[in-house]
Amino acid sequence: MLSVSNTAKRVLVLAGVGNAAGTGAAVARRFAKEGYSIALLARQGKALHHIENEINRSGGHAAAFPLLSYSRDDISSTWISVQEKFSAPEYNIRAAVFNAGQPIFKPFLEITPEEVSNSLEVSTAAAFAFSREAILSFKGNDIEEPLGKRGTLLFTGATASLRGSPMTSLFAAGKSGARALSQSLAKEFGKDNIHVSHVIIDGYILTDRTRQMMGQRVGNFEANSNIRLSPESIADAFVYLTKQDRSSWTWELDLRPAHEKW
Amino acid sequence: MLSVSNTAKRVLVLAGVGNAAGTGAAVARRFAKEGYSIALLARQGKALHHIENEINRSGGHAAAFPLLSYSRDDISSTWISVQEKFSAPEYNIRAAVFNAGQPIFKPFLEITPEEVSNSLEVSTAAAFAFSREAILSFKGNDIEEPLGKRGTLLFTGATASLRGSPMTSLFAAGKSGARALSQSLAKEFGKDNIHVSHVIIDGYILTDRTRQMMGQRVGNFEANSNIRLSPESIADAFVYLTKQDRSSWTWELDLRPAHEKW
Amino acid sequence: MLSVSNTAKRVLVLAGVGNAAGTGAAVARRFAKEGYSIALLARQGKALHHIENEINRSGGHAAAFPLLSYSRDDISSTWISVQEKFSAPEYNIRAAVFNAGQPIFKPFLEITPEEVSNSLEVSTAAAFAFSREAILSFKGNDIEEPLGKRGTLLFTGATASLRGSPMTSLFAAGKSGARALSQSLAKEFGKDNIHVSHVIIDGYILTDRTRQMMGQRVGNFEANSNIRLSPESIADAFVYLTKQDRSSWTWELDLRPAHEKW
Amino acid sequence: MLSVSNTAKRVLVLAGVGNAAGTGAAVARRFAKEGYSIALLARQGKALHHIENEINRSGGHAAAFPLLSYSRDDISSTWISVQEKFSAPEYNIRAAVFNAGQPIFKPFLEITPEEVSNSLEVSTAAAFAFSREAILSFKGNDIEEPLGKRGTLLFTGATASLRGSPMTSLFAAGKSGARALSQSLAKEFGKDNIHVSHVIIDGYILTDRTRQMMGQRVGNFEANSNIRLSPESIADAFVYLTKQDRSSWTWELDLRPAHEKW
Repeated sequence: MLSVSNTAKRVLVLAGVGNAAGTGAAVARRFAKEGYSIALLARQGKALHHIENEINRSGGHAAAFPLLSYSRDDISSTWISVQEKFSAPEYNIRAAVFNAGQPIFKPFLEITPEEVSNSLEVSTAAAFAFSREAILSFKGNDIEEPLGKRGTLLFTGATASLRGSPMTSLFAAGKSGARALSQSLAKEFGKDNIHVSHVIIDGYILTDRTRQMMGQRVGNFEANSNIRLSPESIADAFVYLTKQDRSSWTWELDLRPAHEKW
Repeated sequence: MLSVSNTAKRVLVLAGVGNAAGTGAAVARRFAKEGYSIALLARQGKALHHIENEINRSGGHAAAFPLLSYSRDDISSTWISVQEKFSAPEYNIRAAVFNAGQPIFKPFLEITPEEVSNSLEVSTAAAFAFSREAILSFKGNDIEEPLGKRGTLLFTGATASLRGSPMTSLFAAGKSGARALSQSLAKEFGKDNIHVSHVIIDGYILTDRTRQMMGQRVGNFEANSNIRLSPESIADAFVYLTKQDRSSWTWELDLRPAHEKW
Repeated sequence: MLSVSNTAKRVLVLAGVGNAAGTGAAVARRFAKEGYSIALLARQGKALHHIENEINRSGGHAAAFPLLSYSRDDISSTWISVQEKFSAPEYNIRAAVFNAGQPIFKPFLEITPEEVSNSLEVSTAAAFAFSREAILSFKGNDIEEPLGKRGTLLFTGATASLRGSPMTSLFAAGKSGARALSQSLAKEFGKDNIHVSHVIIDGYILTDRTRQMMGQRVGNFEANSNIRLSPESIADAFVYLTKQDRSSWTWELDLRPAHEKW
Repeated sequence: MLSVSNTAKRVLVLAGVGNAAGTGAAVARRFAKEGYSIALLARQGKALHHIENEINRSGGHAAAFPLLSYSRDDISSTWISVQEKFSAPEYNIRAAVFNAGQPIFKPFLEITPEEVSNSLEVSTAAAFAFSREAILSFKGNDIEEPLGKRGTLLFTGATASLRGSPMTSLFAAGKSGARALSQSLAKEFGKDNIHVSHVIIDGYILTDRTRQMMGQRVGNFEANSNIRLSPESIADAFVYLTKQDRSSWTWELDLRPAHEKW
């Protein structure tokens, strides 16, 4: 095991940035404020650089790593680039967040074969590839004291991670697969002091997209934080999980707005 | 909707035959005894024809449809062959069983990218392709009275369908995905009187493989039906599910030996 | 262990008869047709004797055992009366069904302390008392071949057995408790070849009460078996569970109408 | 609705103090450090006053309210005493923790009727009584900004809250009941901005009792925080939950040591 200097700067590797108003961006900003350097992995070049720039301008430190695809090869080679840029002894990868994948809501018979392949690749196969890099990277870390951990791997889940419903067959299949993976990893690598967590997000998140979509239906969707999740509050939960000490780790928690019907 | 003559012979389409001593074969034999014609879909040519011949010799009716792969295209084109062979008015596809996929038990870091792709293809993507064909086929059926169903689609699940454990990350991801799919389908197509069920098998099944493997460790594994599942008893549960009337359908049940620790 | 003659008549002990049109009554009738003598335990004297008479008149064999309450003492002393009436070598208690308890749907703040005590007593504490008598009784049985079981203990569960919702806090608490009990018993006594099962009923059952209640709202509630459970079909599931052989026992299955939204 | 001055001191009402080294005591100390006044409710007079004194001596503020029993009447009358002592405008009850009940591990047939009644009373019925007082009290609060909540009600759960196992039938029944209650309350009172959470503790907690018990078996149980939960870390999770803002509330999270097998 490599011993890593305590003076090294913590790095978060984040896969799935979404747009500038979503969970990925909020997690990046929030961990930057916690002092992490942020490696941003995503396919969408524009939002990616937008967030990179925003964090760097506001005194944080971020670097964008555009992904050609969520294939195993592209994730692995991109991770190598991350490690080259954020290498010891200056840097130390301590957190990884898998936030990739878009919800898909379609009647079962309208789902195309391409959607099945793409969705399982991004939601599940890519989670395997990303987790592999994160776990291998964490195994090279020392155990940070007093927290007692080598690193924290976090997954963004959804209601569909827990059950299938009409319209969600494909989304639920992919998210359930990633959830099962996260549980296996939590059990297998806990003994190596690697913390794996899965966050179930149950409700609409306030993003540019939902702001437009719900703005018509629900007058005060943006202003009424009782009925939708703030990306910043989700990010708070992610930070909290990284700070849990080795005696009391959470594998799974759910998050939903106060007035959500469930 | 096509009206189908009540004199048509019921057909079961079974994907995943395994070897002659496994669940697939027992399901085929059992449904043959119930009067179904059996369409056997599987990659393994030898076992496939072995079971086909055995059923035909013993007074049943089966036909083998070798699958080149579990890709969407191969499943679709094979299903067309099934429909050509078992066409109305003589035949009527009333049941479909998705039994494909082999358990994989490996430490996470030893899983290869190929294993991830193959496993998700067979366990989850193929379940989507097979379900699509089954649902479309059932939608063309009349509602059989007095049962009140157009058809029954059954999935073979496992403990790994419910949770991930060390050594089962990949198996659990694929099986959890198929389970979520089955739940979505049960909810979406129940209103069309299509019955979708998921059977959790929790324990070792008596097969040629486990007979050899456990024979060394557990002296009376074969003889002691308290400690392992008989494929024939699993097949009984599948038949039972097809016979549930519309007022009381089971989506999920578990099966395990009397002395199983769980 | 007492060896019991194979010529003994099987006995079902059923707690919770409800009215003549409910699940309890249907289970009693169905097991009577299977050749069981039926011991009917319930508080409601009228329905109790109605069903007793009906079964006896139609060629079956039933005896009513009025319960003063669902307290441990009353259940124990009533069980002794059952054993006196249905004693070896003529009789052999092989099945027990715990079907007691009425759904309670109330806003949390309107629930009275008396309702809390009564509900927990009938739904959970009585399940402990009844299960104790059933398990002790079954332990005195031989293992029936070829099924490989000493006896089957069945619980009637509900959606509320799985989760709490607004209006169901008390009902869900009691049913969740009984479900946890059933799972513990399945695990603890499976090795003694005692089969314990829990049946989740998810939907409205067609009874006199729901016929009246829903008749106003849902025109064809009685006629449309797609939207409500038939007590007879539920009883079929109970009988099926008693017939599972030792290699493949179900602890839990769910039952719901084909068109149920869930 | 009563408007409560923002200058009022926050009060935590805690039921179930255990001994001075357990979860209850750690929660009391931790909330005292957060500035809460602590109302300590418990049956055990000695530990109760020990913790009360300890908190008061160390600059916090606590008051002990000995409970005669966990009956509805005793909980209600004690809560009235709490409200008299901690009344507006000086005080404002903003958090309540239900931590009552001791684990019971016994073979099913050794459980006595008294144990059944006592356990269901303390684990489930008392949870109803305590929750009622907490909810009524919170409904009188204003919505605290910017958090957006009137109050937080927290339950200490266990692995047995999720499933029954051999030896845990009674403990699991009681804890499952309380969990179902907590879920109902979260759904019913979320719309009133009352936050209800359930914390699953999966593993041994370091207490005087486990220190003695495990000290023999596991050499470094006390020193090795990888294998047991620190009460202080559990208390951190409780405080975290009270600080979640209205857009992202957790109903349930699990806590276990890094090296726990599960």
